Amino acid sequence: MMAEAKRYPLLDSLQSPADIRQLTVTELEKLAAEIRCLLVDTVSQTGGHLAPSLGTVELTLALYSVYHFPEDKLVWDVGHQAYTHKILSGRRDSFHTLRQLGGITGFPKRSESEYDAFGVGHASTAISAALGMAVARDLQGRHNRVVAVLGDGALTGGLAYEGLNNAGMLHSDITVILNDNGRSIDANVGALSEYLSAIRIAPQYARAKQDVHELLSGTHFGRRVLKTAAAIKDSVRAALVPGDIFEEMGFHYVGPLDGHNIGQLQEVLRQVQQLHGPVLVHIHTQKGKGYAPAEADPERFHGVGRFDPVTGRSAPKTGPASYTSVFSKALIELARNDERLVAITAAMPSGTGLKAFGEAYPRRFFDVGIAEEHAVTVAAGLATEGIHPVVALYSTFAQRAYDEILHDVCLQNLPVTLCLDRAGLVGEDGPTHHGVFDMAYLRMMPHMTIFVPKDEEELRHMLATAVKMDSPTAIRYPRGAGLGVTLTEGFQNIPVGKAEMLQTGGEVALLAVGTMVDKAQQAAQMLQAKGRSCTVVNMRFVKPLDTETLLACAKESKLLVTLEEGALMGGFGSAVCEALADAGVQVPVLRFGIPDRFIEQGPRDELLARGGLQPGPIAQRILKYFEEDNR
Amino acid sequence: MMAEAKRYPLLDSLQSPADIRQLTVTELEKLAAEIRCLLVDTVSQTGGHLAPSLGTVELTLALYSVYHFPEDKLVWDVGHQAYTHKILSGRRDSFHTLRQLGGITGFPKRSESEYDAFGVGHASTAISAALGMAVARDLQGRHNRVVAVLGDGALTGGLAYEGLNNAGMLHSDITVILNDNGRSIDANVGALSEYLSAIRIAPQYARAKQDVHELLSGTHFGRRVLKTAAAIKDSVRAALVPGDIFEEMGFHYVGPLDGHNIGQLQEVLRQVQQLHGPVLVHIHTQKGKGYAPAEADPERFHGVGRFDPVTGRSAPKTGPASYTSVFSKALIELARNDERLVAITAAMPSGTGLKAFGEAYPRRFFDVGIAEEHAVTVAAGLATEGIHPVVALYSTFAQRAYDEILHDVCLQNLPVTLCLDRAGLVGEDGPTHHGVFDMAYLRMMPHMTIFVPKDEEELRHMLATAVKMDSPTAIRYPRGAGLGVTLTEGFQNIPVGKAEMLQTGGEVALLAVGTMVDKAQQAAQMLQAKGRSCTVVNMRFVKPLDTETLLACAKESKLLVTLEEGALMGGFGSAVCEALADAGVQVPVLRFGIPDRFIEQGPRDELLARGGLQPGPIAQRILKYFEEDNR
Repeated sequence: MMAEAKRYPLLDSLQSPADIRQLTVTELEKLAAEIRCLLVDTVSQTGGHLAPSLGTVELTLALYSVYHFPEDKLVWDVGHQAYTHKILSGRRDSFHTLRQLGGITGFPKRSESEYDAFGVGHASTAISAALGMAVARDLQGRHNRVVAVLGDGALTGGLAYEGLNNAGMLHSDITVILNDNGRSIDANVGALSEYLSAIRIAPQYARAKQDVHELLSGTHFGRRVLKTAAAIKDSVRAALVPGDIFEEMGFHYVGPLDGHNIGQLQEVLRQVQQLHGPVLVHIHTQKGKGYAPAEADPERFHGVGRFDPVTGRSAPKTGPASYTSVFSKALIELARNDERLVAITAAMPSGTGLKAFGEAYPRRFFDVGIAEEHAVTVAAGLATEGIHPVVALYSTFAQRAYDEILHDVCLQNLPVTLCLDRAGLVGEDGPTHHGVFDMAYLRMMPHMTIFVPKDEEELRHMLATAVKMDSPTAIRYPRGAGLGVTLTEGFQNIPVGKAEMLQTGGEVALLAVGTMVDKAQQAAQMLQAKGRSCTVVNMRFVKPLDTETLLACAKESKLLVTLEEGALMGGFGSAVCEALADAGVQVPVLRFGIPDRFIEQGPRDELLARGGLQPGPIAQRILKYFEEDNR
Repeated sequence: MMAEAKRYPLLDSLQSPADIRQLTVTELEKLAAEIRCLLVDTVSQTGGHLAPSLGTVELTLALYSVYHFPEDKLVWDVGHQAYTHKILSGRRDSFHTLRQLGGITGFPKRSESEYDAFGVGHASTAISAALGMAVARDLQGRHNRVVAVLGDGALTGGLAYEGLNNAGMLHSDITVILNDNGRSIDANVGALSEYLSAIRIAPQYARAKQDVHELLSGTHFGRRVLKTAAAIKDSVRAALVPGDIFEEMGFHYVGPLDGHNIGQLQEVLRQVQQLHGPVLVHIHTQKGKGYAPAEADPERFHGVGRFDPVTGRSAPKTGPASYTSVFSKALIELARNDERLVAITAAMPSGTGLKAFGEAYPRRFFDVGIAEEHAVTVAAGLATEGIHPVVALYSTFAQRAYDEILHDVCLQNLPVTLCLDRAGLVGEDGPTHHGVFDMAYLRMMPHMTIFVPKDEEELRHMLATAVKMDSPTAIRYPRGAGLGVTLTEGFQNIPVGKAEMLQTGGEVALLAVGTMVDKAQQAAQMLQAKGRSCTVVNMRFVKPLDTETLLACAKESKLLVTLEEGALMGGFGSAVCEALADAGVQVPVLRFGIPDRFIEQGPRDELLARGGLQPGPIAQRILKYFEEDNR
C-alpha cells in the first residue's frame, strides 16, 4: 500500500465542507475513490458498518455539493451509512477513532457535530424527524432545505410509514432520499420490497409513460378519458410513473436513479430544490460498492470486525461459541420434536442466529422486515392458535414493541417467547444499541417471566423451559462469546422462579443475574481472600423473583449485593428492594448495575470496568462499605 | 317506548349465531333495526362506544350470515365497533351489563367468549393478529377463514402498515375489511386518508376501468402497450382500479362498497372466499348510522356517557372542571406569550383537550392521526430547531411510543413535553385503557423529568414549568374531574425535584403522588383520629425524586408509606425503596399502588376501593401494620 501522505491528496486538500461545492464531477469521482480507500483502511482496523457506508459515497458527495449543510439539515436513517458524511464534515482527522472509547461515534450524534442534525441508531425515524425540522423552519419563517436519507429496509418500519403519511398531508418542503439497495442487513423482505424490485427491473416504465400519454391524447376517446375526470388523469399518470405508491401518499416521486452517478444525482437534487411539497428521490445503490469483498458478501460487511483490507478476510473466530450460536442450535434442536415452535425475526436472521433455523424449517421461519411491533403482534396471533412463536430481537430494538408485548401478549397471557440478544452493554455501537432497559421494561408487565442465563449452557435449558410454558416469557442474553462452559446433550427443565445457590453461608450475599453471576463469583473469591465470607446466588429470574431465597439471604447475611448488567432504575436490584420492603425486612443493599445515564461506546469490558461492574471494582466497593460502616 | 318484550322479536328468536345464516336479507335488515334499538337503549344507560358500533351493524350481520364463527376467526381492530358482534355471539342477555363492574367488557376479550378471537383496545393490531392466525391455520393444515375489520383511522398506525406489508408478502388467505367512515374519533387525517377520500368521491373509476381497457386493446398501439410489458399491464390495471395502493402491497382490492347494504356485502364476502391470498374489502359506513343524534354528532357519540335515548342529550356536566379542560386552557394561555409552543395529538383533539388549541393556533397544532410513534419523533425533530412541542396522549397509548421517547427524545435530551391524560385507572374502558405503567416506563429513561400534579391547579403550574425546561418532561394526570380547587390567574414555577410538605412531624410519613395526595390527606385525618400522627408529603416528582425530603422523613418517622395510582413494579414506591437502599437507610415501607396484575373495568372509585386505594382502606392497612408489629 501507498504511504499515508499520498493516499488521500484530494480529501486532504479540503479545508471545509463548502469546498466540495467547488469540485467538478471528475474531481468528485476521484474524491469518492479516496474516501472508499479511507473507509476500508479505517474500518479494517476499527470494525464498523462498512458495506452501508460504501454504498452511499457518491450520494453523500452529491448532497454536499448541492446543499449547504449545516444550515440545510441532513437526517440519516439508522445512520450506519453516514461515514462519508462524518469524513466530509470535519471528522476526517478523527476518523481513525471511529467507534473507539472516547472517539467519534459510529452513528450521527448531535453532541458530536452540528452537521449531525439528528441522532440515530434505531431504524425508520428519519422522515418523522426531518418533517419536524421542516415544520419548525416554516413556523420560524426560515428557508433552509431538509433532507432525509432512508434505506429501503427502514421503509418496512411502521414509523417510516407514519412519517410519510403525515408529510404527505402537511405539504412542507422536504426531500426524502430512498436509498434502495434491496437489503436491510440481510436481503430485504415484504410486499413493499417486492414493489420496489418491480420498479427496479422495469426501465421500460419511462418509455411507456410517453407512449401511453401519446396514445390517450391522440384519439377522441382518449382525450375524453384524459379530460373528463381529473381523478382518473392523476391515476393514469401515477400508474405509468414508477413510484405511484409514493405519489398516492402525497409525494412527488423522482426516480429510480443510479445512486453511484454523481453528475446525475447533482442534477436531480438541484431540480428537486425547485419543487414544493414533499419529494421522494428513489436511488439504487450497491451495498459494499467499490470494495470487492464487500460487494461479494454485503451481509458480512454490514457490520464487521477487524479484517485484512487486502483480502477482506477476518481473523478466524476462536474461543467459546457465542450466545447467539448456542441459541440458534438449541432452537433448531427443540423444533425437531415440537411442531408448535416457529421463529420470527425482524430483519436480523444472521444477527439473531435464526438463519440456520430458516434453512432447517423454511415454513416455520418468518422474517418480517424491520418491524418489531408486527413481529410481536403476529406472534400473539399465532399463539392464539396453538403455535408457540419464538421472537428473536436485539434487546434495544425490542423497545419498539413495548406496547405490543404488554397489550397483545401479556394482557392476553399468550405463550410467546422473546429471545433478547445483545442484552446489556454491546460495546462499540454505543448508547443507541446498548440493551440495558429490558429487565426494567419487561418486569412491570403482568404474566411475564424473565429468564437471565448465567452462561450459554443455561441459555439452552432456559429456552427449552420457556417454550414449554403457556404464558409470556423472555430470555435476555449478551452479545458475543459465552463463557466457554461445556455444552451438554439434551435439555433440562429450569424450575421457574427458583434461584440457584452457588455458595452459601456468607456474611455478604451476592445476588446476581446473567453475565454478572460469573463476575460475582470472581468478586467473592477476592472478598474471601480479604476475610469476607460470601454467599453467591444465580437468581436466574428477574420475574418471578425468588423471594424465598432472597429473604433467606437477608436473614443470614449482613449485606445484600445485587448485580445486573442492566438499568438500576426499575431493574433487578429494584425488584429486590421492593421485595424486601414488601416483606418488612430491613437489610442493607448495595446495587451494581447501569446508572441513570446513557452509556458511551467502547470495548464492553472497559465499559463494565468504568461502571464498576468488573470483579475487582465490585469487591473493592463491598470492602469499602464494610470499612466505612465499621462493621 | 314499547315494552321490552316486543322491542326485539327477531333478535330474541335467535337461539345461536348459526341462526343468522338462515335469515333473508329483509329479515337481516329488520334485525339491524332491532339491534340499533338495543344499542341505543343499552348505551344510553351504560355509556360506551355508540357511534362506532352503530356504523357496523350491517357489516356484522353480513359477516355472521356468511362466515362460520368461531371456527372462522374474526378480529376487530380497536374493538369499540364490536357491540353487535357481542350481541350476536351469546351476550345479548348480558349486554345490559356492558362496561359495568363484573359485566361484559366494552372490547373483545378472549377470556369472555370464544368468538372474541383477539383482545383489543389499542389501534392497528388487527392485521398482524389475523395474519398470525392465518399462518397458524396454514401450518396446521386447517381451512378456516380469517377476517380482520379495521377502521380507516387505525390504518394510519404504523403497525397496520407493517401488517399489510407482511401479509402482502406471505400470501396467506386473509380478508381485511377496511371500514371507512372518514374518521377515527375526530375527523381523520393523513395523506392516506385523503387518498381514501379520493376513492370515495370517484364513482367514475369503475366506468373508466372499462373505457380504458377498451381503448388500449382496440388499437394496434394499445395492444402493443398491453402485450409488451407485463409490469405495465399490471400497473395500468392497478391505476384504473381504485385501491391500487393496496394492490401494490400485494392485496386483492375489492370496493368501495356501501357498508350498510347487507345484500351487497353478503355477495362480495361470498365471492371473496373464492379468492386466494390477502384481500382487502373497502366499505363505506356512516359513524352513528341510524340514530339521528349520533349521525349529527359522531364525535360526541364516539365514546359517550349516559344520555337520554329520545333526545340524545347528556345530562349537563356539573362539578369541577376536568383535568383535560384545565390543561387545554392553560396551554392556550401559555402559548399566547411563547411562540415556541406547538401542540401535537394522535387523533385525539377532543379527548386531550387540544381542539381548542387548534382553533386558537391552527398553524401550531398538529393532529398526526393514530400514530403515537410519529407524534413523538416529529416532536423530537421540532425540538432540535428551537420549537417546544407539547405532545398530548392518553397514558396507555403513549406506550406505543416507548422507544421513540427513549431513543429520539431522552437520548438526545430534547425539550419535548409529554402530557399524559387518562393516567391511572380510567374506569369502564378497562385493562387495555388503564394508564398505570407510565411512571414505571418513564422513570428508567435518563434525562426525563416526571411531574405528577396533586390537583388541577398544580397541573397548570407544572405545565408552565415543564415548557420552560430544556430537557424531556412528562406530566401525568387522571381522567375526569379535578378536585374543584380554586384556579388562580397566571403561572408559578414549580421547583423541579422538590416535594411539597403538607403536614410534618408524624410517626407515619405518607409520601404520595398525584391523585393519591388528596387520599393521603384524608387517610391522615383518620389515622390522627386513632392517635397516629402523620407527615403528609406531595412528592410532586417521580423523577428526579426528592431524596432529601425522603431521607428527612425516614429519619423522623417510624414508617414510610408510598401512595401512587400506578404500577407498583418499578413505579414511584419502587423509586423510594431504591433511594433508601442507595442511601443505606433502613426503615419500613408500606407501598400502595396497582399490583402486578391487569385491573378489570368498573367505576374508578370502586376499582380504587377494591385495590385498597381509598382513604379508609389506606388508614386501616396502616393501623393494622402497627397492631401486628406491636409498635
